[in-house]
Amino acid sequence: MSSEKPIGIFDSGVGGLTVMAAIKRHLPRESLVYLGDTARVPYGTKSADTILRYTEECCDFLAAKGVKAIVVACNSASAHAFPYLGNQFSFPILGVIESGVQGGLEATKNRHIGVIGTEATIESDIYAKELKRREERVRVTSLACPLFVSLVEAGWIDHDVTRQVAEHYLKSLTQDGLDSLILGCTHYPLLKNLISKVLGPKVVLIDSAEMVAKRLKTLLESEKLENLSPEMPKHQLYVTDLPRNFETAARRFLGEDIPPVKRVSL
Amino acid sequence: MSSEKPIGIFDSGVGGLTVMAAIKRHLPRESLVYLGDTARVPYGTKSADTILRYTEECCDFLAAKGVKAIVVACNSASAHAFPYLGNQFSFPILGVIESGVQGGLEATKNRHIGVIGTEATIESDIYAKELKRREERVRVTSLACPLFVSLVEAGWIDHDVTRQVAEHYLKSLTQDGLDSLILGCTHYPLLKNLISKVLGPKVVLIDSAEMVAKRLKTLLESEKLENLSPEMPKHQLYVTDLPRNFETAARRFLGEDIPPVKRVSL
Repeated sequence: MSSEKPIGIFDSGVGGLTVMAAIKRHLPRESLVYLGDTARVPYGTKSADTILRYTEECCDFLAAKGVKAIVVACNSASAHAFPYLGNQFSFPILGVIESGVQGGLEATKNRHIGVIGTEATIESDIYAKELKRREERVRVTSLACPLFVSLVEAGWIDHDVTRQVAEHYLKSLTQDGLDSLILGCTHYPLLKNLISKVLGPKVVLIDSAEMVAKRLKTLLESEKLENLSPEMPKHQLYVTDLPRNFETAARRFLGEDIPPVKRVSL
Repeated sequence: MSSEKPIGIFDSGVGGLTVMAAIKRHLPRESLVYLGDTARVPYGTKSADTILRYTEECCDFLAAKGVKAIVVACNSASAHAFPYLGNQFSFPILGVIESGVQGGLEATKNRHIGVIGTEATIESDIYAKELKRREERVRVTSLACPLFVSLVEAGWIDHDVTRQVAEHYLKSLTQDGLDSLILGCTHYPLLKNLISKVLGPKVVLIDSAEMVAKRLKTLLESEKLENLSPEMPKHQLYVTDLPRNFETAARRFLGEDIPPVKRVSL
């Protein structure tokens, strides 16, 4: 058995394009449908309730596109909506949280793991709960870094101000003894170099994009849902606000050859 | 003639509470209905089209509350939606742009005025257009300061990082010869001290909250819409996301005695 149906990927904005790029590398034959809820971005500062409502609307949109699986590429959405989505659809849904958790457990040697994310993700305490469920003796330090998303979206990736903000947030972690740090927000991998400089070379940074792509590959294989057709895959990009800024970001993440970005109203 | 109907005030988030506070001071007998669209904040990074749609929904909500006038306290909404709203309602609608424009023209001596705001507001070029429409020989320098809103919302009002961001944005203005600067975003008055330090004492800062409250007072008087009832005014606060964080902000702006904050779905 196999399936030519596309895979749905959803994020509040552009951050999930890092996940889409990783999935393209690991599953080059699969067709992908990306939805960025750019008219309501960011999710990370909003309540669990509102995040759940928006996530349901986005998943309904992807379901109507006939997807065979959905990857929730947004950490805030994965943290708050994931437990409620499982039973609503007939196809599998993967979140980024479990991928980060797995990466953290594989990387740590001293069983002390750090997690950074948006306020919504850290408030949910989902990473600490999942890490402890899988490995009881693990110690977890969680920290919200709310300004990181705005700085990345403003393009201040290498700016001295961003380095100072990183030091402000992360300096407390340097004395904490953790040996691995989960980047619990899809924007944060863009600050990897800077975060690494502040924390030093001994702390391994976990970017869940690669991990979720590998998990998706395993899932499609075990469920016999791979696309075995010899035809070229077709990708689709949707946003809820005007496509203009999104197109620039999509080219940076996916390369020059992107499909036209369409706007939808949810 | 008079009217006991309330006045509607709308903003994308908490920033418009500065406008509500000014209206309370200038019109202490009026009942006020505030709506903060906190589930979709910020507007300033979104497209004109999306801002217009959200603003219409917010004004429809206030109209259904039976208001006798609406103050659009959000600059991004005033910039993009204002020209389209005028004909849709039977009551007057006031925006913050005209108030800032009037304040700038009154303050300037050398006819060189600066405007700072969100990307959406600056991109609309509405301040420059309105200033030139009223006073042809005025020179206008406009500048977007997108990180200011995030820094204010994160509470980094007096932080050294915020000072550096202010210097980064504003240092180009110091050599520009302007003698007055319109704060074209309701968040910015909270950074007044810091902005003033960077620009020096010779540049007058224009905060449109006071100005729009005065214009509203004049309007109610001339249209005979004042509330002359001896009863105490009743205020209402509505938000589109959970009320929790909003309540803290509302207490800071309006004092301890705030009405219960209710959540609505638009």
